[in-house]
Amino acid sequence: MYRLSELVGHIGGQLSGDPDYCVSGLATLEDARSNQLSFFANSRYLKQLKVSDAGAVLVHASAAVHVPHNAIIVDDPYLAYARLSQLFDWRDAIQPGVCATATLDTTAQIDASAQICAQAVIGPDVIIEAGVYIAPHVVIGRGCQIGKDSRIEAGVVLYPDVIIGARVIIHSGSVLGADGFGFARHQQRWVKICQLGGVRIGDDVEIGAGVTIDRGALSPTRIEQGVKLDNQIQIAHNVVIGEHTAIAGCTGIAGSTRIGKRCTLAGMVGVTGHLTLADDTHVTAMSLVSKSIDKPGTYSSGTGLEPHQQWKRNVVRFRQLDELAKRVRSLEQTKAEDINKVSKT
Amino acid sequence: MYRLSELVGHIGGQLSGDPDYCVSGLATLEDARSNQLSFFANSRYLKQLKVSDAGAVLVHASAAVHVPHNAIIVDDPYLAYARLSQLFDWRDAIQPGVCATATLDTTAQIDASAQICAQAVIGPDVIIEAGVYIAPHVVIGRGCQIGKDSRIEAGVVLYPDVIIGARVIIHSGSVLGADGFGFARHQQRWVKICQLGGVRIGDDVEIGAGVTIDRGALSPTRIEQGVKLDNQIQIAHNVVIGEHTAIAGCTGIAGSTRIGKRCTLAGMVGVTGHLTLADDTHVTAMSLVSKSIDKPGTYSSGTGLEPHQQWKRNVVRFRQLDELAKRVRSLEQTKAEDINKVSKT
Amino acid sequence: MYRLSELVGHIGGQLSGDPDYCVSGLATLEDARSNQLSFFANSRYLKQLKVSDAGAVLVHASAAVHVPHNAIIVDDPYLAYARLSQLFDWRDAIQPGVCATATLDTTAQIDASAQICAQAVIGPDVIIEAGVYIAPHVVIGRGCQIGKDSRIEAGVVLYPDVIIGARVIIHSGSVLGADGFGFARHQQRWVKICQLGGVRIGDDVEIGAGVTIDRGALSPTRIEQGVKLDNQIQIAHNVVIGEHTAIAGCTGIAGSTRIGKRCTLAGMVGVTGHLTLADDTHVTAMSLVSKSIDKPGTYSSGTGLEPHQQWKRNVVRFRQLDELAKRVRSLEQTKAEDINKVSKT
Repeated sequence: MYRLSELVGHIGGQLSGDPDYCVSGLATLEDARSNQLSFFANSRYLKQLKVSDAGAVLVHASAAVHVPHNAIIVDDPYLAYARLSQLFDWRDAIQPGVCATATLDTTAQIDASAQICAQAVIGPDVIIEAGVYIAPHVVIGRGCQIGKDSRIEAGVVLYPDVIIGARVIIHSGSVLGADGFGFARHQQRWVKICQLGGVRIGDDVEIGAGVTIDRGALSPTRIEQGVKLDNQIQIAHNVVIGEHTAIAGCTGIAGSTRIGKRCTLAGMVGVTGHLTLADDTHVTAMSLVSKSIDKPGTYSSGTGLEPHQQWKRNVVRFRQLDELAKRVRSLEQTKAEDINKVSKT
Repeated sequence: MYRLSELVGHIGGQLSGDPDYCVSGLATLEDARSNQLSFFANSRYLKQLKVSDAGAVLVHASAAVHVPHNAIIVDDPYLAYARLSQLFDWRDAIQPGVCATATLDTTAQIDASAQICAQAVIGPDVIIEAGVYIAPHVVIGRGCQIGKDSRIEAGVVLYPDVIIGARVIIHSGSVLGADGFGFARHQQRWVKICQLGGVRIGDDVEIGAGVTIDRGALSPTRIEQGVKLDNQIQIAHNVVIGEHTAIAGCTGIAGSTRIGKRCTLAGMVGVTGHLTLADDTHVTAMSLVSKSIDKPGTYSSGTGLEPHQQWKRNVVRFRQLDELAKRVRSLEQTKAEDINKVSKT
Repeated sequence: MYRLSELVGHIGGQLSGDPDYCVSGLATLEDARSNQLSFFANSRYLKQLKVSDAGAVLVHASAAVHVPHNAIIVDDPYLAYARLSQLFDWRDAIQPGVCATATLDTTAQIDASAQICAQAVIGPDVIIEAGVYIAPHVVIGRGCQIGKDSRIEAGVVLYPDVIIGARVIIHSGSVLGADGFGFARHQQRWVKICQLGGVRIGDDVEIGAGVTIDRGALSPTRIEQGVKLDNQIQIAHNVVIGEHTAIAGCTGIAGSTRIGKRCTLAGMVGVTGHLTLADDTHVTAMSLVSKSIDKPGTYSSGTGLEPHQQWKRNVVRFRQLDELAKRVRSLEQTKAEDINKVSKT
């Protein structure tokens, strides 16, 4: 339960209403009840705002007149919502200590303020800094380091030599530091190239569930500070992801590619290997990036969705597209010759 | 070992042959030996049927004459096969009890008929109903609930507030309830939006291996009853999947999208966020759905496979397609003018 | 630390320089210091070769003249690098024995030279051969078999009936033997088809992190010897992958498809079900294979990346492509008629 005056103290802004009014949670304009707070950040929802039962609404000054009950007037309601959401988070406070069922190597250094949960396995020479949370069943390999206040969720596996910054979150099922996919061909067989680099994760990175980030072949794979990765992303060896880039689910980045800073890649994007993407590059869903991008901007590939029967006909035509273009060229030449003839006559 | 009369008792149908004949397993028409049962559900396999060594075959009346040995005549041989397959399943019967190596919070309520295997970790306020199977290394967070006769396979992670119905199967490596991918932008950085909704899974849902289903931002992400999800599917926050929809492997559904009832999405389909797909919508493999679909039917995107050199030429032409279309328009206009001239002369 | 003469003893080749010179690691030409070894395998890096500080370089005879310091002259520098990388690998030598925190069924047979790490769970009738490494938190189901010198990394789950050859590596988070996605439709619901086949993995296979390989419906799903699978690959039930085929990350193969020998599938490729791909077939990134391929070669689908605004116009034209082709045909017919008229006059 928070009084509105407390919330204003927390995020700033100006209260229009009762400072002692209390809210106990967050909800959408449509779902919110009188004991909940909501936010208005998209003009499409004006109708919902006007009839919302929300006890209070985070709102820009320009729309405050439409709020039925209490309003907290802020410059950026969506940002204010993000900040207030943290007051209602599901995560419990850290309970420092090591569960008796965890397995720790004697050379591991665990800060006294860290929490190591049930059945975690922590290898030799690992360093766990202050305020770190290691969930049940996490496995941490030799020589890994987890920075201050980071949080490693259940079942994450860190292979040896993974260095993680401060305030990092890694969700369940993610695997960092597995071998990159490197083989030399020899007589129609594959000879394994051992992957000697590790992984470096910068401060304030969040990594979703089921993400794989391979160790580098020779030097580390690097995710720079502030990067946000959604679920089921695959980052191959030697990749570098620049600061504050955000990547949506199921995207894959092939080996040795460098993604710039502040980029956004939508879901299911593929980026082939050994490319460089400029800072501030944006790629739309399910696009394939197979050449480097030098110029910031938004890029796409693929075709649009259509009814299956129509699509089948167009797909056949796509296979003949080069030929079609040549036929058009030929028609144009005939026309040019005709014009030529006419002008000569 | 089952006598054919027992099998007929189990699934119905009419026996043409020896009721005391025994079979001990299932196999394809081609592989089956005399102690095995097979099924004929696709006319393409008529040749194999005629020479099959199978001791008995599930068959529609119209094809029974071609069965070399015993036949069990049923209306839907494929369905009959599905039902009989359950007699030969690899799953052992539940052995009620809690393994000594499991870690249970004292507030967890475990039905006496449930089985909790080695090294499972079960958090506070969890409710496990009758007949539930919790495999080794499963981690179940605070306040989760697992309905009657459900089965959670090895290594699954349930974050707090995941509510699961009856007779649900969740395969290994799946993660339910991790944070949805929500951030507000502030001065070129990302501010985390805590994800306060949980996950709700209806009765009779099956979830494949390596699936991720994120918790909702404010209210729960919902998978309705009878839904079947293949492996490595990504379901983002706030998504709703309607009853009896089936989704094949590697498909990703972005945030707040609602998929209708009885839909089928083939493998590697991408659906962008905030869309609505009508009931009975079908989408073919590797299609991108980037607009809502109002009308049931089958939809596709993409191009067909072709030899690489030919494809490269066509890809160049695709980039010029708008221009090509304009050139065709121009040719048509010239033609129209010519006709005009002719008709005037 | 290795003397160059030792390295030559290990991989063959001819030393040009000081046999007693010592190196302690591997690095790229650009990063290598004087105590490191590098390799020159791509003429694009000639500039870097000429100024490299590497203490020694693996090089073909034709380029040996450009090596600033010591050179090891070999036929295939990349292959030599692959072999030497194994001397610097991060994996520790096996320490035979079973950790006290592992849970073993009494019927499991574990070779005395195998290592079973913390909290592994090994089921009934499992056979673990000599030199096998089972990392922490691995779960191995009833009747599985792990061949000589194989290595199963942390958190891998093997369902019952998974048979693994010798010298296999399976990375963390992978799940082998989960149920294939098989259902019969009945009155708008799905009836589960129990999946009775297991999984067979040949010798010298490597499987990346987060890979799922489903058990067969009736007979086993099969990965033949020497196959290399990258991360997050999905292999459906009944699939067969031929010897020495390599598949890059995020690719999915649907049920009952057979991939030939020595194929390469790039990342994010989709292959639909019940197809056959010829030996020596290559498929480029993010292509969809929806028909069988009879002829070896390289295949592609999709469109190229382009600026978003231009792409949007072309996507509209793609939807009209069949119509456009018909309009071109009509123009050609008019032209043919004109020529006809001309020739008649």
